[in-house]
Amino acid sequence: MSDTPPAGPPPRHRPITLGLDVGGSKTDTVAVRDGEILARVRLHTGWGPDAVVATILDAVTALRGRAGITPDHPVTIGIGIPGQIVPGTTRVAHAVNLGLDSFDLGAALADATGSTVRIENDVKAATLGAAFLRGGAASMAYLNLGTGIAAGVLTGGELWRGTRGAAGEIGHISIDPAGPDCRCGQVGCIEAFAGGGAIASRWGRPGALPVRDVFDAADAGDAHAIALRAGLAHGVAAAVRVLVLTADVDVVIIGGGLAALGERLLADVRRELRRSAAASSFLGSLRLDERIETLPEGSAAAALGAALAGAGRPAPQTAGVLARG
Amino acid sequence: MSDTPPAGPPPRHRPITLGLDVGGSKTDTVAVRDGEILARVRLHTGWGPDAVVATILDAVTALRGRAGITPDHPVTIGIGIPGQIVPGTTRVAHAVNLGLDSFDLGAALADATGSTVRIENDVKAATLGAAFLRGGAASMAYLNLGTGIAAGVLTGGELWRGTRGAAGEIGHISIDPAGPDCRCGQVGCIEAFAGGGAIASRWGRPGALPVRDVFDAADAGDAHAIALRAGLAHGVAAAVRVLVLTADVDVVIIGGGLAALGERLLADVRRELRRSAAASSFLGSLRLDERIETLPEGSAAAALGAALAGAGRPAPQTAGVLARG
Repeated sequence: MSDTPPAGPPPRHRPITLGLDVGGSKTDTVAVRDGEILARVRLHTGWGPDAVVATILDAVTALRGRAGITPDHPVTIGIGIPGQIVPGTTRVAHAVNLGLDSFDLGAALADATGSTVRIENDVKAATLGAAFLRGGAASMAYLNLGTGIAAGVLTGGELWRGTRGAAGEIGHISIDPAGPDCRCGQVGCIEAFAGGGAIASRWGRPGALPVRDVFDAADAGDAHAIALRAGLAHGVAAAVRVLVLTADVDVVIIGGGLAALGERLLADVRRELRRSAAASSFLGSLRLDERIETLPEGSAAAALGAALAGAGRPAPQTAGVLARG
Repeated sequence: MSDTPPAGPPPRHRPITLGLDVGGSKTDTVAVRDGEILARVRLHTGWGPDAVVATILDAVTALRGRAGITPDHPVTIGIGIPGQIVPGTTRVAHAVNLGLDSFDLGAALADATGSTVRIENDVKAATLGAAFLRGGAASMAYLNLGTGIAAGVLTGGELWRGTRGAAGEIGHISIDPAGPDCRCGQVGCIEAFAGGGAIASRWGRPGALPVRDVFDAADAGDAHAIALRAGLAHGVAAAVRVLVLTADVDVVIIGGGLAALGERLLADVRRELRRSAAASSFLGSLRLDERIETLPEGSAAAALGAALAGAGRPAPQTAGVLARG
């Protein structure tokens, strides 16, 4: 009888993936190995191709240092980008908030790092991360409430991608022909009601956290703020209805900057969903108010999802080796 | 050297599938073998469990006779039902227009016919049939414009099913809080604008083809009819936007009773889609007006799709042996 041999190479040689969520202002990154987040690094994002590449290379260096990854240890890199990726490539078609336009980010980074690099839309990457953190669901959507509104949908472990990059762009479904103008040119879009950018611009007062200011002012009785807050709940509830009535997802996980409002936002959204359930027994049977959840504040879902995408194993079912945290 | 042996059993012994689209008033059925529709039979549908079973057995007998299928020749049966099927079973949870409620239609028919029976929601079955008749698309939706409005979505050859039977129920997405009341209890649903039942009830005049009457009256200058016709195009265009902005399908195939209006309807819908494309460069980039198509009038898509579902090979890619016609 001998000792059981180790199941694989010793830990220090096991594959490491770096996941980077490159946002318009901040970049959140993790190094992941074998079910463990080894390190997390956050930094400001530069603007334009050179500055974005520099931000990513700084993050890679910082992650290697924090996680104690030796220079010769191979890593793979997954990157989430707020924009459209040319399907099947590492080329960013458009990422307005990063100043990228038809830029092969993957090629630039592969040259500079010598690593395999995969690029994914940030909301789709966050969908993978959210599904992983939640620990699975028959089907789920991730609804990102940030400056804009978009969603990712996962059924049977597969992301719905669509053919021209519009899958999940539910922020631009109009729900009210008499509603507010949307930056996209339509009227009454979900995003015009519930996008952080649209709310901030209609609120019109400066502040680091304009939507939080709106909630505070609404609590203090400001009529304009109360109307904006009601519009936000109206838009988010509509997004949840669209996702369930189209894809019948079991769970809608709400993330993005506005998710930090937590119960202050969710209570309003649930009330709005219950109102429509009371009016319609069909909607009532769908129990929409029970299908919504939020990501915990400070969650690394987007960076973790980028790591999942970077590992080339995008289905959460097959990614069970990663840390939940 | 001998003759090449036949690739399979002689034609008379090859599998035959009967596909039955059981509608609220009419049942359309086909017998299919080896790339060929052998026979097509249409008859009136009875109401309630016994009458629905009798209708189906009559159709099976008629199809066997017309197609010259001997009594001992085994067939499989696929049935499309306007209602909700308990996932993974042959039990109809609800089919209001047929008077079925928690009724195991498959078991009743298997006993009576000795055949393998599969049951599918009619819109989902028609989605399979429409995809097959079209000859494939990277991804597509089938938008059924009948008494009500619902859709089926197919990507990578797979139907999106969802987990609680609500996938594709886009008719009950509200697009106007000041719009007409919907029979579901909400206000301004897509179906309240564009469902044949809703239009007929708002038109309020008797007639065999109320929506066609509305179009004729609109052509003659009737203001109420013009408003109803505009609402129909508005609702259908909204359904197309929802399908593309959620699932990014390449093609939306429009079928169901109202599709018989053909270009009279489609021209209005395209105009509505072009209007939103002109307002929004984002929507314009999606070229929605080029993504819509209709089924040819008299198409057997729904019955053919029921046959595909009945053959247990629901993905059109794997069903290429069936006739296109």
